[in-house]
Amino acid sequence: MNLEHLIETSKIRVEKLFDKYFDSHLCPAPLLQQAMSYAVLNGGKRIRPLLVYATGHSFGAKWDDLDGAACAIELIHSFSLIHDDLPAMDNSDLRRGKASCHKAFNEPLAILAGDSLQSLAFEVIVSHPGQLTADQRLQMIKTLSYAGGLYGMAGGQALDLAKTPSLLEMYHLKTGALLIASIKLGAIAANVPHDTLIILEKFAKNLGLAFQIQDDLLDTEESQTIGKPQGLDIINDKSTYPIMHGVLASQEKINELMTEAFELIKPLGNQTQLLQELTLQLLQRKK
Amino acid sequence: MNLEHLIETSKIRVEKLFDKYFDSHLCPAPLLQQAMSYAVLNGGKRIRPLLVYATGHSFGAKWDDLDGAACAIELIHSFSLIHDDLPAMDNSDLRRGKASCHKAFNEPLAILAGDSLQSLAFEVIVSHPGQLTADQRLQMIKTLSYAGGLYGMAGGQALDLAKTPSLLEMYHLKTGALLIASIKLGAIAANVPHDTLIILEKFAKNLGLAFQIQDDLLDTEESQTIGKPQGLDIINDKSTYPIMHGVLASQEKINELMTEAFELIKPLGNQTQLLQELTLQLLQRKK
Repeated sequence: MNLEHLIETSKIRVEKLFDKYFDSHLCPAPLLQQAMSYAVLNGGKRIRPLLVYATGHSFGAKWDDLDGAACAIELIHSFSLIHDDLPAMDNSDLRRGKASCHKAFNEPLAILAGDSLQSLAFEVIVSHPGQLTADQRLQMIKTLSYAGGLYGMAGGQALDLAKTPSLLEMYHLKTGALLIASIKLGAIAANVPHDTLIILEKFAKNLGLAFQIQDDLLDTEESQTIGKPQGLDIINDKSTYPIMHGVLASQEKINELMTEAFELIKPLGNQTQLLQELTLQLLQRKK
Repeated sequence: MNLEHLIETSKIRVEKLFDKYFDSHLCPAPLLQQAMSYAVLNGGKRIRPLLVYATGHSFGAKWDDLDGAACAIELIHSFSLIHDDLPAMDNSDLRRGKASCHKAFNEPLAILAGDSLQSLAFEVIVSHPGQLTADQRLQMIKTLSYAGGLYGMAGGQALDLAKTPSLLEMYHLKTGALLIASIKLGAIAANVPHDTLIILEKFAKNLGLAFQIQDDLLDTEESQTIGKPQGLDIINDKSTYPIMHGVLASQEKINELMTEAFELIKPLGNQTQLLQELTLQLLQRKK
């Protein structure tokens, strides 16, 4: 499979799944359902599902057995964005150029939409058809709950709010945890051996850090180009790697992390080619 | 087993489990961990775990196989109370006579504590030791995610905020869903046949409605006794069954629901005695 085909097909499959999950006309709370689907169907790049599919296909999983996990990880990501945007958190009125969920609806519905998207993510892993065993599904749920919780994304957001001095630890939890989970979910669907999973996890950890530094660089670039302050990071008095260490050192850090990452997965041989190609493309992305 | 023993032992087991889950000194985000444990270890009556244990024991499940579910349903309940109390929701400064989570910590931490307690609930179902099969655990996760989400508790909260005219539908979702889930979780651990599960679910639906009306009656009584308005329900302009139909009709409705409920589980014979005794005791509770 080539990368272009993977990217196109992944996106089509995930959007189709979302349509299915938000399609019911029998919902007793239609406004909440609208708030949930509004937040999910927001034109996101679906990077996390792409990582699930790329890893899964690298190790021989079938599309059908990756769909549930791809959908679930994006639901968790979407839920976190809704809660991140809330007035008490980043207080962001916009998300991808549209009104953020609490602006388009209201704050209580946004809180509940985030909460219900998290529930839905776990339900999808249990219920989505496919040939996965019950044990694989449980492993996926464990991966997802760990990545979203105290030792993952939520912990990272708490560190971010506390203006932690350990920026890379915060990046690792806040952004890295879900990227690591994406790669693990694909690997679990493909039933890879335990030592392969460990290697992939280390690879994903570096990718997560590089990805967040790259994200901060894009914010920096954007603000330099259009001459406005570095958005909410500055307003909210948040440190980023480029603000702390400069653009050049940030680019060097990304290179260092990814060189190490590619070294780490060398023992896995050619089969990781798709994952490597996707990774390189992600790190060359524009906002 | 008699009811007194069940109640005492259940409480001890659940509190011990919570101590274990909030004990780690290796947590990267200790403040978030504190906010989570503060909200859970709040002297709650642990009614939902009690229903898990009572149902499980009625059908022959072992303590060890009920602990995870008992703990998980209380984590979901605790998370919902944190988010309910937020300024954008019920704006309640107090919970069980202590500062609510966002008052004791802050709003962002309270939002994140709720989110992480939800993740933790699913993790506990996957990871808690015991003899449960992978399929039983998946059934539990499905039960829990459904009960907490759009078609359960969160949906009910959305209806409540929207001041829905269908009060009983809202009660069924907002309060009933988690009580139904508690009874189902116990039944799943005991591996009851499908038709028994259906009967228990109907029983639990009636219990959920009766329980919420009883809760509203207690609020009404409390306000009449100490001569203050009916708390946040009035302040937030919320309808309750007693406000709409009066105290007498509320008591009649409870009796009607529970008479029907006990009729429903008659075919299950004597084995539901413990569950019936607990149910009666719950409906005679004082605040």
